[in-house]
Amino acid sequence: MKIQPLLDYINRYVELTPEEAAIIEEKVIFRKYLKGQFVLQQGDVCKYQSFVISGCTKTYYSDEEGQEHIVLFSVEDWWLSDIGSFMSQSPADFNIQCIEPTELIMFSYEATEYLYEKIPKLERFFRQVLERGLVATQKRLIRNFSLSAKEHYLYFKEQYPEIEQRIPQYLVASYLGITKEFLSKIKAQLLFEE
Amino acid sequence: MKIQPLLDYINRYVELTPEEAAIIEEKVIFRKYLKGQFVLQQGDVCKYQSFVISGCTKTYYSDEEGQEHIVLFSVEDWWLSDIGSFMSQSPADFNIQCIEPTELIMFSYEATEYLYEKIPKLERFFRQVLERGLVATQKRLIRNFSLSAKEHYLYFKEQYPEIEQRIPQYLVASYLGITKEFLSKIKAQLLFEE
Repeated sequence: MKIQPLLDYINRYVELTPEEAAIIEEKVIFRKYLKGQFVLQQGDVCKYQSFVISGCTKTYYSDEEGQEHIVLFSVEDWWLSDIGSFMSQSPADFNIQCIEPTELIMFSYEATEYLYEKIPKLERFFRQVLERGLVATQKRLIRNFSLSAKEHYLYFKEQYPEIEQRIPQYLVASYLGITKEFLSKIKAQLLFEE
Repeated sequence: MKIQPLLDYINRYVELTPEEAAIIEEKVIFRKYLKGQFVLQQGDVCKYQSFVISGCTKTYYSDEEGQEHIVLFSVEDWWLSDIGSFMSQSPADFNIQCIEPTELIMFSYEATEYLYEKIPKLERFFRQVLERGLVATQKRLIRNFSLSAKEHYLYFKEQYPEIEQRIPQYLVASYLGITKEFLSKIKAQLLFEE
């Protein structure tokens, strides 16, 4: 069953009956994206929040000079959305682009509201998902405030060991807010220190 | 009733019965802090999430050089916590300090869990509070990425018009990540442009 990874994930937080699982399966959308395709483009309304079955995406903000600022990478078992846009159905601040072929389970705004009504324990589930999202975003903000590029890179490696193997180096550099050349320099320096 | 501002706030999201309101009142702690006192110190465990009845606090991170990075200011009807620390009962990343005499309604971790169990609709309430918190934190992150100091200041004035009147200018400067002198310069320039 394609929905199984989502059910396994939800069951870590709350226990679903087979009937509840069937209601969820009926309401969600399964969608495959190709590498390079956009799940969401800045300025559009975020119509879905999505669970990643497989693949990898980058969530980023493009400034007026066209420079990309990567907020996060998402892989299996992560949630994707521009939550502000999704909640108020207003234009999104972020782009979400696939950097690998990516398979998603997507919840529309209407489906989400319907499911909260039919399966109130999903409130508890999403409350906990949101807590984790808020913690991750606050920690990202602190790292931006305070870490040197080298410290930030070491933190990135520790937090996302498997992601670093999967994505091109220029995306790691963009996430860290530095050039690819400066990242190479940091890596060479770390090799020397080992 | 001292708890009334909290009940009014919760009732914007979910409807509480008088019995449920009484359960909440019994479980929370009312606490007054003096100006300058800490609700939470970086490195301590965040034992409470708090609702602001009156006053104003700053939430900030101190880096290793002792420099303050202000994440947010909180006034009436805002929530205060280091959510990562509160959830995992681990050392806090942030300080929360009162910049006015501040009156709080505080929920311990145990009280929060107890209330979720007794009044499941609070899951829905806190889910929505968390959504708003996540949106605010993501927007803060984007502003840090992309705005010039002047744009950031104008955004600050628009978002927090009443807060600017209440707090010293050096705290506004700290929030913007600039010196007090540079903030004065921006303000003089804006005056000139009007």
